[in-house]
Amino acid sequence: MTTDAAFAELTTRLQRVHALGTVAELLGWDEQVNLPPGGAEQRGAQQAALAEAMQAAASDRRTGELLAGLEANAEALTADQRVVVAHGRKDYDRATKLPVEFVREKAAQGSRGYHAWVRAKAADDFAGYAPVLEKNLELAKREAGYLGWGGREYDYMLDKHDPGLTAAAVERLFDALKRDLVPLVREITGSPTAARARAAAAKLRGFPVEGQRVFLREVTERLGFDYARGRIDVSLHPFCSGTGSDVRMTTRFNADEPLDSLFSSIHETGHGLYEQGLPAAQLGTALGLHAGMAVHESQSRLWENQVARSRGFWRGFEPRFRALFPAQTAGLTGEELSLAVNAVQPTLIRVDADEVTYNLHILLRFELEKKLFAGELAVGDLPAAWRAASRDMVGLEPATDREGVLQDVHWSDGAFGYFPSYCLGNMLAAQLWYRARALRPGLEEEFARGDFSWLLGWLRAEVHAQGRRCDALELARRVTGEELSPRALVRYLRERYGAAEGA
Amino acid sequence: MTTDAAFAELTTRLQRVHALGTVAELLGWDEQVNLPPGGAEQRGAQQAALAEAMQAAASDRRTGELLAGLEANAEALTADQRVVVAHGRKDYDRATKLPVEFVREKAAQGSRGYHAWVRAKAADDFAGYAPVLEKNLELAKREAGYLGWGGREYDYMLDKHDPGLTAAAVERLFDALKRDLVPLVREITGSPTAARARAAAAKLRGFPVEGQRVFLREVTERLGFDYARGRIDVSLHPFCSGTGSDVRMTTRFNADEPLDSLFSSIHETGHGLYEQGLPAAQLGTALGLHAGMAVHESQSRLWENQVARSRGFWRGFEPRFRALFPAQTAGLTGEELSLAVNAVQPTLIRVDADEVTYNLHILLRFELEKKLFAGELAVGDLPAAWRAASRDMVGLEPATDREGVLQDVHWSDGAFGYFPSYCLGNMLAAQLWYRARALRPGLEEEFARGDFSWLLGWLRAEVHAQGRRCDALELARRVTGEELSPRALVRYLRERYGAAEGA
Repeated sequence: MTTDAAFAELTTRLQRVHALGTVAELLGWDEQVNLPPGGAEQRGAQQAALAEAMQAAASDRRTGELLAGLEANAEALTADQRVVVAHGRKDYDRATKLPVEFVREKAAQGSRGYHAWVRAKAADDFAGYAPVLEKNLELAKREAGYLGWGGREYDYMLDKHDPGLTAAAVERLFDALKRDLVPLVREITGSPTAARARAAAAKLRGFPVEGQRVFLREVTERLGFDYARGRIDVSLHPFCSGTGSDVRMTTRFNADEPLDSLFSSIHETGHGLYEQGLPAAQLGTALGLHAGMAVHESQSRLWENQVARSRGFWRGFEPRFRALFPAQTAGLTGEELSLAVNAVQPTLIRVDADEVTYNLHILLRFELEKKLFAGELAVGDLPAAWRAASRDMVGLEPATDREGVLQDVHWSDGAFGYFPSYCLGNMLAAQLWYRARALRPGLEEEFARGDFSWLLGWLRAEVHAQGRRCDALELARRVTGEELSPRALVRYLRERYGAAEGA
Repeated sequence: MTTDAAFAELTTRLQRVHALGTVAELLGWDEQVNLPPGGAEQRGAQQAALAEAMQAAASDRRTGELLAGLEANAEALTADQRVVVAHGRKDYDRATKLPVEFVREKAAQGSRGYHAWVRAKAADDFAGYAPVLEKNLELAKREAGYLGWGGREYDYMLDKHDPGLTAAAVERLFDALKRDLVPLVREITGSPTAARARAAAAKLRGFPVEGQRVFLREVTERLGFDYARGRIDVSLHPFCSGTGSDVRMTTRFNADEPLDSLFSSIHETGHGLYEQGLPAAQLGTALGLHAGMAVHESQSRLWENQVARSRGFWRGFEPRFRALFPAQTAGLTGEELSLAVNAVQPTLIRVDADEVTYNLHILLRFELEKKLFAGELAVGDLPAAWRAASRDMVGLEPATDREGVLQDVHWSDGAFGYFPSYCLGNMLAAQLWYRARALRPGLEEEFARGDFSWLLGWLRAEVHAQGRRCDALELARRVTGEELSPRALVRYLRERYGAAEGA
């Protein structure tokens, strides 16, 4: 068998497993968007059967033989082929090195953990949730051990979501960010501009859902989302799923929060544009997969924040916004609208946070996760540690655990190491933004004309088309010519929210 | 291993394969209802990966061992367990006895055949379609041979959709039906009542879709469809998919065809009620599967025709119908409305046919299929044979093959032997109807009060809860106390449409 034939067969097999994964994702989408309330149990059985089929396909011995053969002939492979083989190996090991009983235990715990979290949050009962966290931590460490990451368990968790990332690298970045961001937040939120922005935002009330729907459809289409290869529906929590030519976003509507629905849709559009931009023919191999959650978040944040909160964007869309909502916008000046989309207000809850203070929530979670994995913090001490860190970083102390350590779903099913992606995505987004503006100084003028094609084309070529060829750090280096750092993010936040603007 | 333990393991395995099947069905639903136009190719890859996973799961050697063990201990099994084992064997043989190359060839041909049919129908080009039919016939015969039905190929095709049916049994039933139905149709369609019914139906124009949506939702809910365990959406062609607690129906709307949307929705509701009524805990084994397509059609036809075209039904719903469409119904008397829902008009096209003439279309197809499989009719002679049979039975001769032999999709992917189910379903529906009325003489009065609960409860117990315990013929015997025959159908058509009524 030639190397090329073996590579072709491997590709087919990886794509088949990936296709099953996209089916599971579609079932998840359907569960949030369509599933009749009584169908949950049946859906669980479908997902379980599918998971078993995926596991069987992913651990097929023939895939292991092909990988071993290709690895033994690595010198005969192209650089792209090596990328596919390396990631194929990673997935194959994950599918074959975890004992069956462990996989079963973890799956059962994942479902138990979620329900325990829902209960604990409703009852503000951390003590009832602590055993779940203990168990999830133990399972995470065991999983790392099975896969050869013993002693570097938190690195393993980070690498799972962002291939190539280490706790040491994140720590360096976050420490630098924290130094600048904490005082900057105090400065911004205390400014008269921030007070005026909050007052302006409070005036946005009573926007009919039908108009919101029309506006966000027009906006997301203009940004470049291809509705021939995707759709947007309504769900309780917005998300984006699917890939390639079937990308499904969701949003939610609230007449008194028109910007919430709009910006969360633009956020999902950023994710969607990335998935629509992955190389179609390579879908399901590393050449057609996103580069990790940090890069994914950089795309959603870039479109949501740098683009859609810009003056240029609103210069372009303001007339249409006013035309759709004449009564609602009658008492709002152009400056107030501009301020409203950039209102900053520290909050206890991460998912409600603005783009400035959001990062503080992540720094907090990273510090606690790191200590949990290092054994420097006991699960039982988490609530107190959370309160202290929240006071220290966000400047607010939660009165209940529900607004503190119990607020996020992630840990309930063992998704440790995921939070940093959000903040790293913000850093990368800002860094990409300045690079784009350097290459194309008139970018905001184009936005004002409703033209986002240059930016999308550039991201398509520099980020989307790359697939998983390089990790977030390497991508930053290649595309922006600089190491990933918090400098661009701090500069951006200072420029947009600092004393220099609109004060 | 005890028999019970083996049976439990077999059940789990059969349910897992079935769960994967329901996932494939959901993907099919999604394709008709949600899929973005550009997503077709990706959906094909998902379905192919899923089909491969299903094949692997269905042919797992362990299932074969369990079946063999249980068959060897058949005397230790309960009657219900024997039903599950027998059908498990059938499915296992189908999954294991067909050579891999044959399965691949057939799958490829299925997709090719569909597209060839679409092209041929558009171009009215039977010659371009004939090779597809030849191939499909050959594949069907080979498939029957692999599974031990050599020499009884058409029986095999019938049994595939309706376990237990044979061509000889169908022929007896259809010959008897034809004898009575052909003259009855001439008599009905030539009557003054029929002319008035057609005139009344022609008055139904301009019914806003929103009102239609409200009405059909209220009607289907009142009939008993449980929207906590199902939903209805819009697609190009109405269908019903899913089972148990996630049943998905579709409909389509046309302002000038309000009855089309309503009756097709009630038809799908009949299918949906059956699927919702299958025993939940046994879903995926023969105890929780429908008994075949004839029984399935009996449920859809019973609700669509016997129930929803009855005087009682319309006495109950007429006020609501008028309230939702005051302008559209202003010039329509109650008698006209009653006539309009029972308009009869021979047509060349099966899917446009009323409940009286519909059966003629099936008799025609059965005769041709039978001859094709017996080698008494060559594919090349089909168009002429179709025209002759259409003239003979429907009383109309198609001027083009598009309105003749090319009108149906079924044969394009080898679904021979499916058509008879429709007509057998009509026979069974009528037979169930008279049995129900004998047990519950005031049934139509209950309908007039909007109460369908007795009928549904009776069908739940007598039909739905039975799963696949018996075939259509045995079911008719058990539930109605009589052999399946066309007598009830002819009597019903005569009573509802004959000279006795409304003339």
